[in-house]
Amino acid sequence: MKVKIINDPVYGFLRFPEPEVMAVLAHPWFQRLRHIKQMGMAQLVYPGAVHTRLHHSLGACHLMQEALYILRTKGIKFSDEEALGARLAILLHDVGHGPFSHALEHVFVSGISHEEISLMIMRKLDQEMAGALGTAIQIFQGQYSSKFLHQLVSSQLDMDRMDYLNRDSFFTGVSEGVIGYDRILEMLTVQHEELMVEEKAVHSVEKFIIARRLMYWQVYLHKTVLGAELLIINILKRARAIAEQGTTLFCTPALHHFLYNKISEQEFKENPKHLEAYCALDDNDITASIKVWQNEKDPILSRLCRMLVQRKLYKVKLSSGSLNDELATKKLRAQSLLNTTDEQTINYFVFGGSTKSSTYNLDDERIQIALKTGKTCDISDVEDPLVSKALARPVVKNYICYLNE
Amino acid sequence: MKVKIINDPVYGFLRFPEPEVMAVLAHPWFQRLRHIKQMGMAQLVYPGAVHTRLHHSLGACHLMQEALYILRTKGIKFSDEEALGARLAILLHDVGHGPFSHALEHVFVSGISHEEISLMIMRKLDQEMAGALGTAIQIFQGQYSSKFLHQLVSSQLDMDRMDYLNRDSFFTGVSEGVIGYDRILEMLTVQHEELMVEEKAVHSVEKFIIARRLMYWQVYLHKTVLGAELLIINILKRARAIAEQGTTLFCTPALHHFLYNKISEQEFKENPKHLEAYCALDDNDITASIKVWQNEKDPILSRLCRMLVQRKLYKVKLSSGSLNDELATKKLRAQSLLNTTDEQTINYFVFGGSTKSSTYNLDDERIQIALKTGKTCDISDVEDPLVSKALARPVVKNYICYLNE
Amino acid sequence: MKVKIINDPVYGFLRFPEPEVMAVLAHPWFQRLRHIKQMGMAQLVYPGAVHTRLHHSLGACHLMQEALYILRTKGIKFSDEEALGARLAILLHDVGHGPFSHALEHVFVSGISHEEISLMIMRKLDQEMAGALGTAIQIFQGQYSSKFLHQLVSSQLDMDRMDYLNRDSFFTGVSEGVIGYDRILEMLTVQHEELMVEEKAVHSVEKFIIARRLMYWQVYLHKTVLGAELLIINILKRARAIAEQGTTLFCTPALHHFLYNKISEQEFKENPKHLEAYCALDDNDITASIKVWQNEKDPILSRLCRMLVQRKLYKVKLSSGSLNDELATKKLRAQSLLNTTDEQTINYFVFGGSTKSSTYNLDDERIQIALKTGKTCDISDVEDPLVSKALARPVVKNYICYLNE
Amino acid sequence: MKVKIINDPVYGFLRFPEPEVMAVLAHPWFQRLRHIKQMGMAQLVYPGAVHTRLHHSLGACHLMQEALYILRTKGIKFSDEEALGARLAILLHDVGHGPFSHALEHVFVSGISHEEISLMIMRKLDQEMAGALGTAIQIFQGQYSSKFLHQLVSSQLDMDRMDYLNRDSFFTGVSEGVIGYDRILEMLTVQHEELMVEEKAVHSVEKFIIARRLMYWQVYLHKTVLGAELLIINILKRARAIAEQGTTLFCTPALHHFLYNKISEQEFKENPKHLEAYCALDDNDITASIKVWQNEKDPILSRLCRMLVQRKLYKVKLSSGSLNDELATKKLRAQSLLNTTDEQTINYFVFGGSTKSSTYNLDDERIQIALKTGKTCDISDVEDPLVSKALARPVVKNYICYLNE
Repeated sequence: MKVKIINDPVYGFLRFPEPEVMAVLAHPWFQRLRHIKQMGMAQLVYPGAVHTRLHHSLGACHLMQEALYILRTKGIKFSDEEALGARLAILLHDVGHGPFSHALEHVFVSGISHEEISLMIMRKLDQEMAGALGTAIQIFQGQYSSKFLHQLVSSQLDMDRMDYLNRDSFFTGVSEGVIGYDRILEMLTVQHEELMVEEKAVHSVEKFIIARRLMYWQVYLHKTVLGAELLIINILKRARAIAEQGTTLFCTPALHHFLYNKISEQEFKENPKHLEAYCALDDNDITASIKVWQNEKDPILSRLCRMLVQRKLYKVKLSSGSLNDELATKKLRAQSLLNTTDEQTINYFVFGGSTKSSTYNLDDERIQIALKTGKTCDISDVEDPLVSKALARPVVKNYICYLNE
Repeated sequence: MKVKIINDPVYGFLRFPEPEVMAVLAHPWFQRLRHIKQMGMAQLVYPGAVHTRLHHSLGACHLMQEALYILRTKGIKFSDEEALGARLAILLHDVGHGPFSHALEHVFVSGISHEEISLMIMRKLDQEMAGALGTAIQIFQGQYSSKFLHQLVSSQLDMDRMDYLNRDSFFTGVSEGVIGYDRILEMLTVQHEELMVEEKAVHSVEKFIIARRLMYWQVYLHKTVLGAELLIINILKRARAIAEQGTTLFCTPALHHFLYNKISEQEFKENPKHLEAYCALDDNDITASIKVWQNEKDPILSRLCRMLVQRKLYKVKLSSGSLNDELATKKLRAQSLLNTTDEQTINYFVFGGSTKSSTYNLDDERIQIALKTGKTCDISDVEDPLVSKALARPVVKNYICYLNE
Repeated sequence: MKVKIINDPVYGFLRFPEPEVMAVLAHPWFQRLRHIKQMGMAQLVYPGAVHTRLHHSLGACHLMQEALYILRTKGIKFSDEEALGARLAILLHDVGHGPFSHALEHVFVSGISHEEISLMIMRKLDQEMAGALGTAIQIFQGQYSSKFLHQLVSSQLDMDRMDYLNRDSFFTGVSEGVIGYDRILEMLTVQHEELMVEEKAVHSVEKFIIARRLMYWQVYLHKTVLGAELLIINILKRARAIAEQGTTLFCTPALHHFLYNKISEQEFKENPKHLEAYCALDDNDITASIKVWQNEKDPILSRLCRMLVQRKLYKVKLSSGSLNDELATKKLRAQSLLNTTDEQTINYFVFGGSTKSSTYNLDDERIQIALKTGKTCDISDVEDPLVSKALARPVVKNYICYLNE
Repeated sequence: MKVKIINDPVYGFLRFPEPEVMAVLAHPWFQRLRHIKQMGMAQLVYPGAVHTRLHHSLGACHLMQEALYILRTKGIKFSDEEALGARLAILLHDVGHGPFSHALEHVFVSGISHEEISLMIMRKLDQEMAGALGTAIQIFQGQYSSKFLHQLVSSQLDMDRMDYLNRDSFFTGVSEGVIGYDRILEMLTVQHEELMVEEKAVHSVEKFIIARRLMYWQVYLHKTVLGAELLIINILKRARAIAEQGTTLFCTPALHHFLYNKISEQEFKENPKHLEAYCALDDNDITASIKVWQNEKDPILSRLCRMLVQRKLYKVKLSSGSLNDELATKKLRAQSLLNTTDEQTINYFVFGGSTKSSTYNLDDERIQIALKTGKTCDISDVEDPLVSKALARPVVKNYICYLNE
């Protein structure tokens, strides 16, 4: 039996023995993920955070194997075909991500999420592979009878989150995100087709939820990272505005397609050439083009691009309170710095907004604990919960971005 | 310059360049800590947890050096003598621990804590070392003018806790206890002679507090560990009862001193021979004696000792609710198992109690955050605190121990 | 299915699902290994090196499971009973170790190795367990038909070595011993009933051999460790000499048996009470007794014991060349230090000897490489070998131990 | 004092307190290194190996700080200005690397090494920074009086190698490269202005040399990695051939400069516009262009590019012996696969060559050991050397690359 074995600094060796999985690994659409950074702009703060969506997908697929192995030793019944389906579903769950992962989601095609694009790609692959992805697609969509398989792919305790916390902690060096994933896996179980965790692992699950909370505030929503993501969004917004005026910008062909066409959700779903173009797009197109745009005639675009390439980023301030007064002051200041009163121009350099993160989302697929008494309960309802309902409510923070003098 | 360098799997190399520190390291009273396990009975559940008080003391002393180095680069003023004092104080903070660390505290000498004994030993050493420990003793007692030095030795964010969380996580393999200690150290500062943490490290401090909470419930108060500690206490209680009746028990000489003499707090403090005997006592005396007592005539003592040596421990149940009914049932059951109705006998094998742990103690030396605004606040008072006042209150759990059939 | 799961900081979780394995784990003879340090006196130099033979045995048993799992995925045929036999054999391979592992081998019972005692204990357990260890014993002895099972237990690439290199590196913090054990395991194979490694792992195997070499010279034969081991041997030699004169020494009962009886190999094998006494002996007996002997009347014994307890060890010098001249000088110096010319006395404090270590033993079970060509060859015969025949020859070093003034 | 602190998963926190160092970090030429992968094409085999030259440069600069700190505690004399010079020199030692690090060296500008370009950039920066790099440049060139400073930057035991072994092992997950760098640093010393290692660290140095050897054969010269590097070279060779014919290829502007101009060493050194163009070039230019070239009309170029993008790489065979016969067979086979007998065409798809690696180069800056006797000797001349002269000689391996059918 031929087994594909890949070195992973996070888990050691990853094994991919199934021919269908190997076929997906070798496919250009999957290989594209090599060129999409898992953590977008975070590398501007955490230089190690250059790992890719491909690497994350491999890792999540490995954790799925571990989870299924453990469930089977506990007598949970599922077929080899279902196991393969779950492996393929998690392997492909992120295949629809565009350049810089979340940072530029909705920028190229508005109104369509990366999950939807993943599904479109999975369907196309399914055709190419003579229906080999049928079960995977059902599991991915939550339409498969054994609900726990979907929950392993997508829930608040899925293999996706488990891998990205492990992996992002590893590559950033932020130990706050370290989780006892092996203990949680070891304690997974299934009751009434629902994924559960045994009571013994309550503390590990609590730690997992807290680790995610801390990674949000310390890394994913780090103010410099947030500012860089807003900067790259502004760059593409400006580039598109210029493109719409008919001005020619240097572009890689794949980027050109999305800059010079305004594609609606419906068009994207109906005309396969858009998906094809999307599958040709990755971080390199954006980075290479932005580097060139540093010398564009448009002063807004060239200034924004120089800020990004030379890492002279926005200054960012985050606060739970209102920042409106400070925003007004910074706008006034920008008028003199930029020597203009044109509001549209100023808005590219000074602006505000808000961001939100939930420690534990009570409205999402919740985390169930299988108690020793035979009953089940939500992780926020255990004795002396760490993740109380009060803590679970989302935290909203306001931000302003402005010029660094 | 001669520098003592010691390999530590937790931090890499530890350096001890000061002659006074080297003298303490070489002293038999410090070397005694080689034979006192840091985590008492925890190795019965976590086989790696056999690390010693000596190792912990070295580690905490290393962290002190790091902390002082960072504070100095931030312009905090203190003399080399004060730095040495702080190093010596943390090095010796646990020197008064008796066998099995916390498990047997108060068993040999009632009414006197290990901190008090540490202080007695430090004073004795100070005499031997011609007053070299003067500053260290003041710092240890919290009588030194620069309050932050004491807080580095003893507070809710001291080098003691920081090392034991790191070290205990490392040796048990329980990743729930992993903390971003280097980030916290990096963010330490001093304002008005008080130790603080910069606002940027709020999440790391929160994580540190949660890590400690989880280590308590998952490791330190793990029910099997708790049961084993209560078992060894019962063994020594029974041995002393037998000794008081004048029966001769096999004993190492150091243990004999404490088994056959009832020493009051006052006597211990006044008569130096008791401290000397105490400094001859370590885990080996207890373990070696208990092994022999397996064959003692007294059926209670021999049974308890066999339970410990052969690892047939109590069954333990922990609950936030009352366990009184279950305790009564277990006592009845024990009557038939032990074939006796003698309550005193039964109480050695079936009994209840309660245990308590605080996530963050509002009455202790609190953790202060130096805000960017220039103000300071308590870690439970930051914006969107994880460690809310509600979470901070101590959690009490009841337990019962009974025979494993 | 009830599975025993144990936290191991080295490998994560260890699982023991087989009832027979669980029965062995719970047996007092196996539990005894909790009190025998894996690395003997090494903790005097590497304070983290206090891990136990029990922990090592669990780890080696875990690696065996991994190795067997991988071999099975490659189509190597063996029954579940054989797998269980290999697991039990490795679990018990060190059960015959006495106090301080290798340091005191042959001191209590001369002429009999710990492997022979392991075998005696396995046979006794086999009787207790109604023949459950039959296959394990055959595999352990190398009498089982499938030779590779024995090679996994005992060869130059066995699970024993693989675990102790990993574990000893981990607990000492000496990264020189870190090996790519997972890669080697992944590349194990079997041809003609012989254990092999696939050609792709040649570099990992070379690294493994070199890691072992370096651990020998840097850790196991570290001069201070070597000196401490020779010191504890001298202490027991002296104690026995005193015992033979009929003088009463404080002793734990288990130690008393071996100090006051001279037991020949034959007696040990024939009279079961000796094995029983041996199984009651562990590090604690020695350490607790030596502490007491510090105050013995015999000046040699008390001095040696104080040296060990207070860590005022021998000075040691290692050299490839002769140290005879220096030895003579040190003996002369000792005459004046000890104020005696009695040679027997002086020999306890100043003496020489030699120690030997092989990087790769050409006379032992060799490491075979399965080449891509279909042929096999020895690891020292691959193209551009790192472990050449020249390097493989044993290195002998002379040493002298003398008093530290 | 403002200190730049950066998270590094390899070493923890990196600190950059010097204003001159911070100025270099912020400079666009240094920031360019964010877009140059440290390990070139290795990520095609080791998906974690996407770390950058920027990250490596930061890490090496950190090790320099550690090394200098340790040397100073040993009484080695050097000024703060010299320390700063050494820090700047190592920080900039790789700033002259072009896209994909070593893979494409000499492709854009023949006859000029990345070290020479680093020096050109350093000189340009020195002008911009008013001479702040004077000492750094002297140290980098080996012209500074204190020779050990240069040896820390460039020798067989320099901070460059030490960091890349640590870092490449970390990101690939290949534990074979793990080294005891902290022990080596701890044992560095200087005698007669030469960098040395104390005798106690001989084993660590040996391990370091072996680790490098194994990383070469297992990772850097891994046959798939080697094949991918030869593929990207062939792609650029072909693209330039097409460009020379005057055909227009899609290109980023920076790449266009080097594809459509043949720049001699002399021109590169004399005309500053070439260096400027070079400093605008990074991995993204190449990757983005190659992706587009998949659809180029030239069948050779488009085929080669598809091979790379879709990861259908050359098959590669490595051998110490001659591969000429096999090469001839593969060429014949290619004639029918490619349906051509044109040798030039075939040579793009089937070809051979040789590669070389030295375990320890006797002709380079050697590693000196400071013996306890006061003498010094080469690492290959210690007692029982692991790195014998025989082992030190370079190993040459032949390879052939051919089409994977």
